[in-house]
Amino acid sequence: MKCNVDYESDTDFPIENLPYGVFSTKDDVVKRIGVAIGNYVLDLKKISHLFTGPELKNNQDVFKQESLNAFMALTPSCWSEARSYLQKLLSEDDSPIKSIPECLVKQSEVEMHLPAVIGDYTDFYSSIHHAQNVGEMFRSKENALFPNWRQLPVGYHGRASSVVVSGTPIRRPRGQTCPEGAERASHVPSSLLDFELEVAFFVGGKPTTLGTTVIAEKANDYIFGFVLMNDWSARDVQKWEYIPLGPFTAKNFGTTISPWVVTVEALKPFIVPNTVQEPEPLPYLKHSDPFNFDINLSVSIKPENSKLSTIVCRSNYKWLYWTAKQQLAHHTVTGCNINPGDLMASGTISGAEPDSFGSMLELSWKGTKPVQLKGNTTRKFLQDGDEVIIEGFGQGIGYRLGFGKCSGKVLPALSA
Amino acid sequence: MKCNVDYESDTDFPIENLPYGVFSTKDDVVKRIGVAIGNYVLDLKKISHLFTGPELKNNQDVFKQESLNAFMALTPSCWSEARSYLQKLLSEDDSPIKSIPECLVKQSEVEMHLPAVIGDYTDFYSSIHHAQNVGEMFRSKENALFPNWRQLPVGYHGRASSVVVSGTPIRRPRGQTCPEGAERASHVPSSLLDFELEVAFFVGGKPTTLGTTVIAEKANDYIFGFVLMNDWSARDVQKWEYIPLGPFTAKNFGTTISPWVVTVEALKPFIVPNTVQEPEPLPYLKHSDPFNFDINLSVSIKPENSKLSTIVCRSNYKWLYWTAKQQLAHHTVTGCNINPGDLMASGTISGAEPDSFGSMLELSWKGTKPVQLKGNTTRKFLQDGDEVIIEGFGQGIGYRLGFGKCSGKVLPALSA
Repeated sequence: MKCNVDYESDTDFPIENLPYGVFSTKDDVVKRIGVAIGNYVLDLKKISHLFTGPELKNNQDVFKQESLNAFMALTPSCWSEARSYLQKLLSEDDSPIKSIPECLVKQSEVEMHLPAVIGDYTDFYSSIHHAQNVGEMFRSKENALFPNWRQLPVGYHGRASSVVVSGTPIRRPRGQTCPEGAERASHVPSSLLDFELEVAFFVGGKPTTLGTTVIAEKANDYIFGFVLMNDWSARDVQKWEYIPLGPFTAKNFGTTISPWVVTVEALKPFIVPNTVQEPEPLPYLKHSDPFNFDINLSVSIKPENSKLSTIVCRSNYKWLYWTAKQQLAHHTVTGCNINPGDLMASGTISGAEPDSFGSMLELSWKGTKPVQLKGNTTRKFLQDGDEVIIEGFGQGIGYRLGFGKCSGKVLPALSA
Repeated sequence: MKCNVDYESDTDFPIENLPYGVFSTKDDVVKRIGVAIGNYVLDLKKISHLFTGPELKNNQDVFKQESLNAFMALTPSCWSEARSYLQKLLSEDDSPIKSIPECLVKQSEVEMHLPAVIGDYTDFYSSIHHAQNVGEMFRSKENALFPNWRQLPVGYHGRASSVVVSGTPIRRPRGQTCPEGAERASHVPSSLLDFELEVAFFVGGKPTTLGTTVIAEKANDYIFGFVLMNDWSARDVQKWEYIPLGPFTAKNFGTTISPWVVTVEALKPFIVPNTVQEPEPLPYLKHSDPFNFDINLSVSIKPENSKLSTIVCRSNYKWLYWTAKQQLAHHTVTGCNINPGDLMASGTISGAEPDSFGSMLELSWKGTKPVQLKGNTTRKFLQDGDEVIIEGFGQGIGYRLGFGKCSGKVLPALSA
C-alpha cells in the first residue's frame, strides 16, 4: 500500500499496521492518542474532527481522551471505520492532514504511556509446551499436565496496578523465599529473576453485565487488539508462596507491555488455523473461525555496559493451544463482567524446540543449562543491568507488521 | 456521646462510628459521599464548605466526589480532623448543619453504591482455623497447613470488576466442574455454591511507587477503614480449576461488600492484642502495636419465601492470625505499588468452634453434616433464593459500633 509518510521497508509500522497508543511530548505533557506510522506518530487529538464517517461522527470525543478506553468501548464497525479512514488519510496525495500543523510527531520525540487504564489484568497459561515443560521440571514428563489443562484455559487474576509500559526499569524484588530443606524463610533479593514471553489482548466493546457469559462464538466484539508482554517473575519467591492459591508477590512487582496496540483487523492477514484440541472443548469454548496468528516472537538479553544483545528465544504466537476467544469465554463462564481496557495475557509462549522456550526457567532448564550470550558470557537467570527486549512481527507480502519493543532493564535490589 | 440526631441505642451508626459511604437518591441520582448517623445519612457534598480546619480547608473537593478515593488518598491526620469535626457538627446544639436544607437524608430513601473505585482487589487467607479446616478436609489433620502458611500471609489477586455493593443479587454461576472419577468436565450450574465470611480494608494514602515496600511498622498511613465481605465461591468449580494457579472463575462471579467504610479510628476502642505468631515473623512483617479488633461477626441465611433467618455462624475478626498491616506489608514486599481505593480482604474468618466456621464448606464439613435452619429445613450449600446476610459490630460501653449489612440473594442459574 502507498503511504504519504515515508518509511523504511522494514519498519514495524507500515500503513498496513496502524496500531494505537498514548503519547506525550516535552512541549505538551498532556497524554493523547496517536497512531504509529513509520517513524512518526499521527496525533489523533489534532485530527479528531476529520472522523466524519457514519460510525464516528458522533464519537469524535474518543480521540480526545488521555487513554484508549473510550475508543476501545466502541464496536468493531467503529474500529474498522477508523482504520479505513486512517489508511485513506495516510495514502492520498491531497490528504487534509497535510494542512494540520504538527499532527505528525517523530517517535524519537515522544514519551509513550500505558495505552489504557487497565481495570483488571488476567494472565492465562495457554501454551501447552510451556505448561508441559514446567510440569516436567517440577513433577514428571508423564504427569506434566494437570487433568484440567486440556479442558479449560487455566488462568488467574493478576495485579493491574503494576502493569507498566515498555522502557520502565524493573527493580529486582526482595521477597520471601525458603531454600530447599531450610526451616525458616528469608527476606532476600530474588536470585532467580526471570522473564516470561507473552502476548496480551485488550478487551473492547461495552462493559458486560455481571452474571452473563460471552461465549467464544461471540467473543469477537470484545477483543480490541494485542500487545507484547513480559510477565517478570521471581522463581524462588513463586516456588515458596504459590501453594495453594497461586503466584502473588512473585509476579506483582512489574509486568511490562509494549505501547502500541495492534488491532485484530491489522492481524487478519496473519490468521492461521487454530491448534487442534483434544478432547474437543465444551460448547461455550468452541468457535468455528480461525483466531490464531502467525506472529514471530523473540526475546533478547542485553547485559549492562554491553553493546551486544543476544536473541535467547524465538517463538510464535501460533503455538498457543487456547485462543484469545476461548480465554475470554472462559473468563466470563461463571458470569464475571468485563470492561474495555481489561488486559488478558496468553501466559508464557513456548514452542516445542529448546530455543523457542519463553522463559529462562525453561531455557536454562531450572538453572541446569547455562544460556550462551554474545560477549563470552552466560545466563541461567537474569542479572542486574540486563535489558530484556521482546519483539514480535507478522511477515506480510512486502511489509512487516511489527509490535515495536517491549523492553525493561533490571535494576539492582534496594538495600534492606 | 451526645448527638443532635436521634437514634435508637442499638443503632449500628451512633456518633462514635461515622462510617463513610457513597449514596444517591431518587431526586438526585448523582452519587455523593455521606456519613451514616443513626437512620440518616449526612450528605457531605452539601456541607463540604464547612470543613475549614487546617488539614481540610484546601481539600474540601474530596467531599464533592462520586467516590471516596480522593478522601482516602489523604493522610490519617486529615481523616482524623474530618472525624472530629463531624462529631462536633453532630453533637453541638447550634450546629450549622441545622440550617442546611436536606443535608440529612433518611437511609430508607437512599441507594448505596460501592464506596470507592476499586483499582485492585486482593484476597488473603489469614484465618488459621479456616486454613486448618480446609487442609484437614482435603489432605489430613497433620498436613493441613502448608509450610509457608505461618511464615507469610498467603494471598492472591482477585477480580475488582465483580465486587458489588450489598443488596446486589448474585446469579448462581454455570461453570466447569468435573465430578470425581469423570473423564470429561461439564458446564453446569454450580451445585456447591458457598459464602465466605470476610472483612476487608480499603487502602488509603498516596499511591506508592512501584519497586518500594511498605513495611508493617509503616502500614498505618495506608489503611483507611474496613467493610464486611462475602466472597461467594463455587466449590465444585474451584476444586476443578484451582491447580496450579489458584481460584479463578470459582470466585470472580461476584464479591459483595457492605456499603459503609468503618474507619480505623472508630475501631480503636475495639483493639485487642495481636495473635501470637510462631515462628516469629520476618522483620518486614513485624509491628509493635496491636492492630487486631474485637468485631463480632455473624452470617445468617434467609431462604426464599421465608420470614425466618437463621444465624449459621458466629465468628470474630480477632481470631485472624495475620493482621491487616502484615497483609499490606506482604503485598508490597517485592515492590507492588498500591493505590487508595484498593481493597484487601482477610479470607474466610473461622473460629475454633464448629459454630464459628465462616463458610458452608466448613459448617457442613464438605457436605457431610447438614446445617439446621429455622422452619424445619437444612442446608449443606446455598440454594436458589437464599439470602446471605453478614453482620458485624464492636460492643462499646453504652453503644454498638456496627458495619451495617452485607447481604445478597442467590438467583437461579440462567439456562444454558
